[in-house]
Amino acid sequence: MIRTHDAGNLRATDAGTTVTLAGWVARRRDHGGVIFVDLRDGSGVVQVVFREEDAHALRNEFCVKVVGEVTRRPEGNENPELPTGEIEVTATALEVLSEAAPLPLPVDDQVEAGDDIRLRYRYLDLRRSGPAKALRLRSRANQLARTVLHERDFLEIETPTLTRSTPEGARDFLVPVRLQPGSWYALPQSPQLFKQLLMVGGMERYYQIARCYRDEDFRADRQPEFTQLDIEMSFVTEDDVIDLGEAIVAALWKDLAGHQISRPIPRITWHDAMARYGSDKPDLRYGVELTELTDYLRGTEFRVFAGAIDAGGYVGAVVMPGGASQTRKELDGWQDWAKARGAKGLAYVVLDAETGAPRGPVAKNLSEAHLAGLADAVGAKPGDAVFFAAGTNPREAQELLGAARIEIAKRAKLVDESAWAFCWVVDAPMFEKTDEGGWTAVHHPFTSPNADWVDRFEEAPDRALAYAYDIVCNGNEIGGGSIRIHRGDVQKRVFDLLGITPEEAQDKFGFLLEAFKYGAPPHGGIAFGWDRVCMLLAGADSIREVIAFPKTRGGFDPLTGAPTPITAQQRTEAGIDAKPKPQAPAHAGTAGPAAPVADPV
Amino acid sequence: MIRTHDAGNLRATDAGTTVTLAGWVARRRDHGGVIFVDLRDGSGVVQVVFREEDAHALRNEFCVKVVGEVTRRPEGNENPELPTGEIEVTATALEVLSEAAPLPLPVDDQVEAGDDIRLRYRYLDLRRSGPAKALRLRSRANQLARTVLHERDFLEIETPTLTRSTPEGARDFLVPVRLQPGSWYALPQSPQLFKQLLMVGGMERYYQIARCYRDEDFRADRQPEFTQLDIEMSFVTEDDVIDLGEAIVAALWKDLAGHQISRPIPRITWHDAMARYGSDKPDLRYGVELTELTDYLRGTEFRVFAGAIDAGGYVGAVVMPGGASQTRKELDGWQDWAKARGAKGLAYVVLDAETGAPRGPVAKNLSEAHLAGLADAVGAKPGDAVFFAAGTNPREAQELLGAARIEIAKRAKLVDESAWAFCWVVDAPMFEKTDEGGWTAVHHPFTSPNADWVDRFEEAPDRALAYAYDIVCNGNEIGGGSIRIHRGDVQKRVFDLLGITPEEAQDKFGFLLEAFKYGAPPHGGIAFGWDRVCMLLAGADSIREVIAFPKTRGGFDPLTGAPTPITAQQRTEAGIDAKPKPQAPAHAGTAGPAAPVADPV
Repeated sequence: MIRTHDAGNLRATDAGTTVTLAGWVARRRDHGGVIFVDLRDGSGVVQVVFREEDAHALRNEFCVKVVGEVTRRPEGNENPELPTGEIEVTATALEVLSEAAPLPLPVDDQVEAGDDIRLRYRYLDLRRSGPAKALRLRSRANQLARTVLHERDFLEIETPTLTRSTPEGARDFLVPVRLQPGSWYALPQSPQLFKQLLMVGGMERYYQIARCYRDEDFRADRQPEFTQLDIEMSFVTEDDVIDLGEAIVAALWKDLAGHQISRPIPRITWHDAMARYGSDKPDLRYGVELTELTDYLRGTEFRVFAGAIDAGGYVGAVVMPGGASQTRKELDGWQDWAKARGAKGLAYVVLDAETGAPRGPVAKNLSEAHLAGLADAVGAKPGDAVFFAAGTNPREAQELLGAARIEIAKRAKLVDESAWAFCWVVDAPMFEKTDEGGWTAVHHPFTSPNADWVDRFEEAPDRALAYAYDIVCNGNEIGGGSIRIHRGDVQKRVFDLLGITPEEAQDKFGFLLEAFKYGAPPHGGIAFGWDRVCMLLAGADSIREVIAFPKTRGGFDPLTGAPTPITAQQRTEAGIDAKPKPQAPAHAGTAGPAAPVADPV
Repeated sequence: MIRTHDAGNLRATDAGTTVTLAGWVARRRDHGGVIFVDLRDGSGVVQVVFREEDAHALRNEFCVKVVGEVTRRPEGNENPELPTGEIEVTATALEVLSEAAPLPLPVDDQVEAGDDIRLRYRYLDLRRSGPAKALRLRSRANQLARTVLHERDFLEIETPTLTRSTPEGARDFLVPVRLQPGSWYALPQSPQLFKQLLMVGGMERYYQIARCYRDEDFRADRQPEFTQLDIEMSFVTEDDVIDLGEAIVAALWKDLAGHQISRPIPRITWHDAMARYGSDKPDLRYGVELTELTDYLRGTEFRVFAGAIDAGGYVGAVVMPGGASQTRKELDGWQDWAKARGAKGLAYVVLDAETGAPRGPVAKNLSEAHLAGLADAVGAKPGDAVFFAAGTNPREAQELLGAARIEIAKRAKLVDESAWAFCWVVDAPMFEKTDEGGWTAVHHPFTSPNADWVDRFEEAPDRALAYAYDIVCNGNEIGGGSIRIHRGDVQKRVFDLLGITPEEAQDKFGFLLEAFKYGAPPHGGIAFGWDRVCMLLAGADSIREVIAFPKTRGGFDPLTGAPTPITAQQRTEAGIDAKPKPQAPAHAGTAGPAAPVADPV
């Protein structure tokens, strides 16, 4: 090593030691004949004192090697803010390892810089303590998760990333294959199919920190490539997977957030989550629960509510504590907020802070009796506001209230930013109605119905429940998975309900179905959205903060300029425009899906 | 868990315990009223005894759950070959978890099956103990390497796999970008550029078990996607990287091969390796060293040798112990062997086993004096054969002898298959002459000249040496790396020598050069070819054995049928035929290479 000591680890006990340090000039101050330099390396910062002329040439971010003696700082000059603040290094030799041009991005934690400049000069950005710390945290998170998994005899197995494209896979990235011109690989959206094949292969306990690819329209904070901690286990029940998931999450939060998660983590059914929080990923750091008012308001003459109730729909409400004190403009603002979400508006009643009397446009439309009992029905106090949603589709109305709940918590400052609230959302529905009146799988068609429903899901597909579970942290879904179907008869019945013919099934899911003919074990798994998990642990507000070289929206990399046009020669060589040769007779059932078959992260 | 115990871990001390097991029927034997089933799970095999009718229905590879009591086997029926051989499980309940159709590939370690059928039914192949063991070994290898690296404060950092394509990158896989139609990503051949950028970013110690991609013509045992253990360190010398590499290799071989590597691992210079073994990855499990005869044979009238010597070339020899006993047909076979390698033939002399008298076609062409001293000059004994190679290009002649050396060791059975012989090949040349008379970089243009040459490599580019090193195990290159140039002035001189103009450098290597302007630290690294490392540890003869779902030659996956043609709709959606929009003004120097800049594994 060019250095003998790490700069940030020097202490008063090292006084008198001659050290060789190597790092970067974080700051330089000239005090007449003496020059003070804050020297930074991966371990931290130490003050170096130069009495020689040559230090005049030093500029910020020069990379230097310094020989010197560790000395106690003169009394009164200690810096208690700095771990090395009791000492300094009196330099006897200086070597500039490499110079730095004027910096396009100051290496300074205090300077706010735009994302574009930060990503374009990511190598300077990473010299700042915040970004560097985020990558260190992520490395540690990997290590912690692996420890939990190896203690439980999991095998780390790599699955292919040059895989089969499927006709449905409009969201697959494609890769032309030069050696088979006209043929293409697809980059996988998850290792789902391969991990299930590993279970059929008897590997029993698999994990992988897996790179996945999704060619999505870039919504906020999406990356075309992302990472999931992907897990699959054989001979397990839902409880086993949940227990493992908790062990991983507990280890992460204990070590990296100093937070002891109390286990078992509470479980809430999907239907309860929707009814109480209007969300399948409820933020439990605060209350503000929804109240269903369908029965309470039955018989109302207010057209909006009556219409929903008569159609067998839903009316509900959520209370904003202290919401009556909002200005007219603030209350109008809620209408704009609701419209931006695609709703017609957000009906409300405010309760007078003194008298508790209900006011507002909706109040005029409700009967005396409905108004009189309203505060009790929704648990509101004088001074609160009550927001309503109604609809023939209960889920839509609940989701509007759920979104209002989050907004209320934000505006009323009900969120304890230092809190961690975890829950499992379990018992998700198996199916939902399609617009055409058929049924589609909520999770994916290999998700197992639970024991209550496995023999009779056809009786009431809308109420049938799956062994599917998501883990939620502070309103973020950080992982999800399911127990899979491993019995051919159950799979066939699910396909029948979904209107998938045996031929279609063979074409879409052929090689997995083929594998399932040979003694498939009961199995299930989970996938954690690793970027999001690390983001939460890092206290960051974007997954970009925990990715070494992230892309901007649209998938552009400001550092390398990727993606780029290609040359005609590249195009020809890659066989992009070649006509595919007629295929060799396909292996019975080799068509495989990627898109719909994935733990949803 | 569906099971209470692992089948393979039951022992005599468990006798009397009621257990629930789950696994696969490995074998079933009917003995009248009693049926014996070998039940296999991830831990091993146990014998289960059924006295019930329902076990008649069991077939090989049915997945079952069995409840029963562990009992000692009747005396005389123990099976000492089996860890569970002292006991059996007397079944009281049986549940078939899923049935198995007749097997296209028997799950039997004794059955030899072709690669195509094994890969097509890889999930059955993986139920066999050999293939399963190879994947377990690989998982353990990852864990061992990570332990070494984390003990040394390395950070695991993921680098992008959707990166920038380069005009030279004819071996890059390309990926069309739907959101930027006409633009393409490239899949990286290695994380080389990003790991160097991480060093510029002050991360100091990076590693990653990284997926890499190379669209090569499929030579034997190449995969389009492969894995390397990729490492980079700042403020280090060659010795530091070598020391770390040895620590990793030592940990792997100790745990997984039961072999204590004696350290330091011997180092041999590239030039010595070529002179003594005719290879830059010498197999040191046996001797059979080359002897240079250029001086010894000076003045010979044998035209083949004289021509090489007069042109300033090379003549050398390698001895095959006992080679004189080869038949005429065997000796002729060597000529065919040499021609298959592109040589004109392989000159030889055999020494009579009794008299030591030299015989053979070449003997006639050599002078008495040359013949008389030959055995001493090359270290041959009576009964040996001496093979010669001569050429104006010493390297070509040495490589022919090096290949002959390997073939000699094989034919003369000189290879101790249980031995492990490691070496580092160091001091590789910086440059080699191009056919056009210029110079090209042997490693890559960012490889640093060593201290002897850094100030004067222009004086004798053909003799200039680099800080570049490969680690070799039994004749396989398992890893390689270099110290990189971090000084702009040195980099400029290397580019000058290579005939790369500043404009070309900017265009080719722009974003890395830009990064190097801002205080780049001295740095270097290494990459291990992880598939090959695991293959050697597993005692396998193909990297396919240590890959969960490998592809065949040509990049075909017999299991999923990838790659495939795509639909017209996919083609349109992916923007494959879109004309790229004129680009935004490029970031100064954003063109980056992938192809030539990689630790060569």
